[in-house]
Amino acid sequence: MKVPLKLLSFLNEEDNFFIATHINPEGDALGSSLALSMALESIGKQTTLYDKDHVPEFYHYLPGYQKFTHAASLHTTFNLPLILLDCNTLDRAGLEGLNFRYSAVIDHHKTESDFGDIRWVEPEAAATGVMIFYLIKELGIKITREIAINLYSAIAIDTGTFRYSSTTAEVLRVAAELIETGANPAYISQSLYETWSEERFTLLIMALNTLEIRDRVAITFVTREMFKKTGTGPEDTENFSSLPRMMKDIKISAFFREIDDNHWKVSLRSRGDINVARIATLFEGGGHKNAAGYKIKGSLEYVKESLLKTISE
Amino acid sequence: MKVPLKLLSFLNEEDNFFIATHINPEGDALGSSLALSMALESIGKQTTLYDKDHVPEFYHYLPGYQKFTHAASLHTTFNLPLILLDCNTLDRAGLEGLNFRYSAVIDHHKTESDFGDIRWVEPEAAATGVMIFYLIKELGIKITREIAINLYSAIAIDTGTFRYSSTTAEVLRVAAELIETGANPAYISQSLYETWSEERFTLLIMALNTLEIRDRVAITFVTREMFKKTGTGPEDTENFSSLPRMMKDIKISAFFREIDDNHWKVSLRSRGDINVARIATLFEGGGHKNAAGYKIKGSLEYVKESLLKTISE
Repeated sequence: MKVPLKLLSFLNEEDNFFIATHINPEGDALGSSLALSMALESIGKQTTLYDKDHVPEFYHYLPGYQKFTHAASLHTTFNLPLILLDCNTLDRAGLEGLNFRYSAVIDHHKTESDFGDIRWVEPEAAATGVMIFYLIKELGIKITREIAINLYSAIAIDTGTFRYSSTTAEVLRVAAELIETGANPAYISQSLYETWSEERFTLLIMALNTLEIRDRVAITFVTREMFKKTGTGPEDTENFSSLPRMMKDIKISAFFREIDDNHWKVSLRSRGDINVARIATLFEGGGHKNAAGYKIKGSLEYVKESLLKTISE
Repeated sequence: MKVPLKLLSFLNEEDNFFIATHINPEGDALGSSLALSMALESIGKQTTLYDKDHVPEFYHYLPGYQKFTHAASLHTTFNLPLILLDCNTLDRAGLEGLNFRYSAVIDHHKTESDFGDIRWVEPEAAATGVMIFYLIKELGIKITREIAINLYSAIAIDTGTFRYSSTTAEVLRVAAELIETGANPAYISQSLYETWSEERFTLLIMALNTLEIRDRVAITFVTREMFKKTGTGPEDTENFSSLPRMMKDIKISAFFREIDDNHWKVSLRSRGDINVARIATLFEGGGHKNAAGYKIKGSLEYVKESLLKTISE
């Protein structure tokens, strides 16, 4: 991976940066941004870290997460150069209309946009965190323990702790170096995966008890009644849809979450070549090939049947 | 990690080995044994691979798994040297009374036994697979794609794909080298975690429905009746004990599996500094700090209470 010289000069020459990442930030967005901010500050630069949304509570173990600001006066002309991390349009960062002097994009998402005076986009990179690792090294900045924890977390979340196809020998060697500079793999994995509340776990068991398998589609659901009984909320159902995918004969896992009376949010997960984004689009939703979703009105029976019918067609 | 010279000479000088691993084999036992067998055969040696129990179906993706034989004529004197892998007593391999000429133990489990003419025991190693990796390299044998898949699987399962505290920079570098010699991380992870049968998933839900939390200990169990109802077996419960550890307030997850009337196999899982090996030892079992187990006779109520009492002391 080759860091563009233009990007290195830009970071060396400027003294004050506005670093922004995408809405609904996850580990790669947060960890990469924090690591870059810390690295630049360690050589005397100033940075403002921005995310439109708040940092989810289970990411509060990331060193420096409090550095994020969530308010931007978009229409005030300010004279800072902008760095967009883990995204590549102002829209994705919730910054439409922002005034800025100059811009750099650092991202591993494929894009059709050409936003950015400097663009460093590496769709082959497992995580933006891997790119920031090389960038920091090219700048000759020491990777501290805090930077290492942020970068390791970024890489861990985007590779499913080294389970997804983006995992390469290079990724493992970068992770090894981050362990040597202070990242603790067990602590980070525990922070990412083992901080469920008892209530959330109870809700998961309730959801699993609704499992129904038809034509290789696994269907589970959660009702508002279940949220009430367990004292949980919609954010507690994150990843519930992935679990039934453990079964080898399942082609699609569909998870229904009750939003309101006869109103459902449907999450679809698949494996390999089965494209659930196409199915979601037919219901006016969207997403990626193996993870997509939509909203639909109707009784649980009706919404289940309409999905099964669409899949079978 | 230093491979004993005596072990290297032994492997170089002998021509025919009986390689055995522990009963109820998991990924590290199977992968390490297969890798060592393949490596020795690639330089013209003969090996017999033995496991008392059958290879669980979801490990059938391991190259060469069919090499395992499950019958040993224990009391026939045979003239083969024995290699015990991932265990360190004849008992643990289900080979009490075996006649053999000479023996070597290669294991990463701490032990008080002194069995073995040659003993290479490294309690700090993340997996026996890591030891076999170094051993094969010291022997100057090429790591083939098939060996790489077996060793990567061994290491992946024993580190929870690089999530447990045994994960070090060194482990990741070994894994990186195995990727370069042919192991595919995504394929192996899917084979390990996403090939459950519907019956096994049903058994998991049944087990989760038994969840009881007392004094921050999560207790779940599976009875022979549940195996019968779902058409599953003991091997299908692998990792059941880990799941309740997702809850942040749980200090120990204890999973009870009914072996026979009033006879239980107990698997303990913990996090961080909580040492379940010490608890297992009090019940004449063993294991590692965060993963240990024992067998106990008595009613379910009795075995639960005796564990809770021991933990609270």
